[in-house]
Amino acid sequence: MSNFGFSTLRVVNPYQIAFREAQSAVGAERLLANAAEFSSVAEAIADCGLVIGTSALQHRELQHPLRRLDEGAALVREQLASGRVALLFGSEKRGLKNEELSHCDWLMRIPTRDAHSSMNLGQAVAVCLYEIAAARNQGGAPGELVADPALAMAASGDVERLTNLLLDSLRASGYVKPKTDASTEEKVRRLVRRLHLQAGDAEVWMGMIRKILHQLRD
Amino acid sequence: MSNFGFSTLRVVNPYQIAFREAQSAVGAERLLANAAEFSSVAEAIADCGLVIGTSALQHRELQHPLRRLDEGAALVREQLASGRVALLFGSEKRGLKNEELSHCDWLMRIPTRDAHSSMNLGQAVAVCLYEIAAARNQGGAPGELVADPALAMAASGDVERLTNLLLDSLRASGYVKPKTDASTEEKVRRLVRRLHLQAGDAEVWMGMIRKILHQLRD
Repeated sequence: MSNFGFSTLRVVNPYQIAFREAQSAVGAERLLANAAEFSSVAEAIADCGLVIGTSALQHRELQHPLRRLDEGAALVREQLASGRVALLFGSEKRGLKNEELSHCDWLMRIPTRDAHSSMNLGQAVAVCLYEIAAARNQGGAPGELVADPALAMAASGDVERLTNLLLDSLRASGYVKPKTDASTEEKVRRLVRRLHLQAGDAEVWMGMIRKILHQLRD
Repeated sequence: MSNFGFSTLRVVNPYQIAFREAQSAVGAERLLANAAEFSSVAEAIADCGLVIGTSALQHRELQHPLRRLDEGAALVREQLASGRVALLFGSEKRGLKNEELSHCDWLMRIPTRDAHSSMNLGQAVAVCLYEIAAARNQGGAPGELVADPALAMAASGDVERLTNLLLDSLRASGYVKPKTDASTEEKVRRLVRRLHLQAGDAEVWMGMIRKILHQLRD
């Protein structure tokens, strides 16, 4: 991360012994010391406008577009002009879980050979950040990318709030059955994520669903 | 190495204990078992037509052209068509020694930020091989995004039906005031249009809003 100029590390439920005893590479001490801990992916990404999951899978997964790293890096660069981007890495053994994937706008994969697609975590992070840094530096000054705050993507925290308002409305209306609640929550989160709402529109949707929910509960 | 399809590892005077006890990543056992040992760089590169040293230095070194990884990778690709290429990595602490550098045709560096240019060895190897593999595959298979009928855009008729269901719900909840109804209708239609819903998702949204509307009217 430090080699390629990325400074914000956020960890979700780290294994405390390994995390606290981790030694940074020379020159990256502050980055590791400043790493913030979160108890859920939702909290960790709350201020991010674009959330990308990483995957070793070769084929398109259900419900998520899958982009090759070089294609995805160009999109990350665009988004970085107007807001924060979260790049999610799962555990080395199992990758990202379904609940974690449900927070992602799309997935990105490093082009590896079919017979050996699972990568060492540190190496996967290095390769991704190398490509994103290269894309970011293309065409010179970042100032050339014009940012319009009204068109910025909605922050993940707002997307999550909207998701919860919608879920509450679906429960109040009887659309969600108690038994299937957990899987429905994931489905609805993915559904709302796929809207790729702009910040202004997310506000309007929250206002509408809030009003509906209020009426349903009356 | 295995992730990116490179199979020939040669080590020069390795620290025996570390080398013999090294555990390969899953899937790369044979690569490590087949690693050949040499007592000098000269012997290790004897059958290679191009020898490239890697360096964390930012500036051109004495007696060697220094190329950025992306530029160098294209040259490596050309050479691979006609013969073997050696990519030399030095020790993590001190890099390549002068004697080792003397065997190199030119040097290559990974573009890192000035303040932190020294990389972890495994990460540096991964980034270099990623870029060389990408250059080698250029012009091959295009994007990973495959057309999927389930991902087709929703028909305008469905978008309009969804808009009307939403409007009815907003009226039933009191969000839409009778006086402003006409302008709200346009606003909501634009809002729904901007979602650019896929066909499958439009169905789900209609089902949810229909259920909510039914409950609001009860």
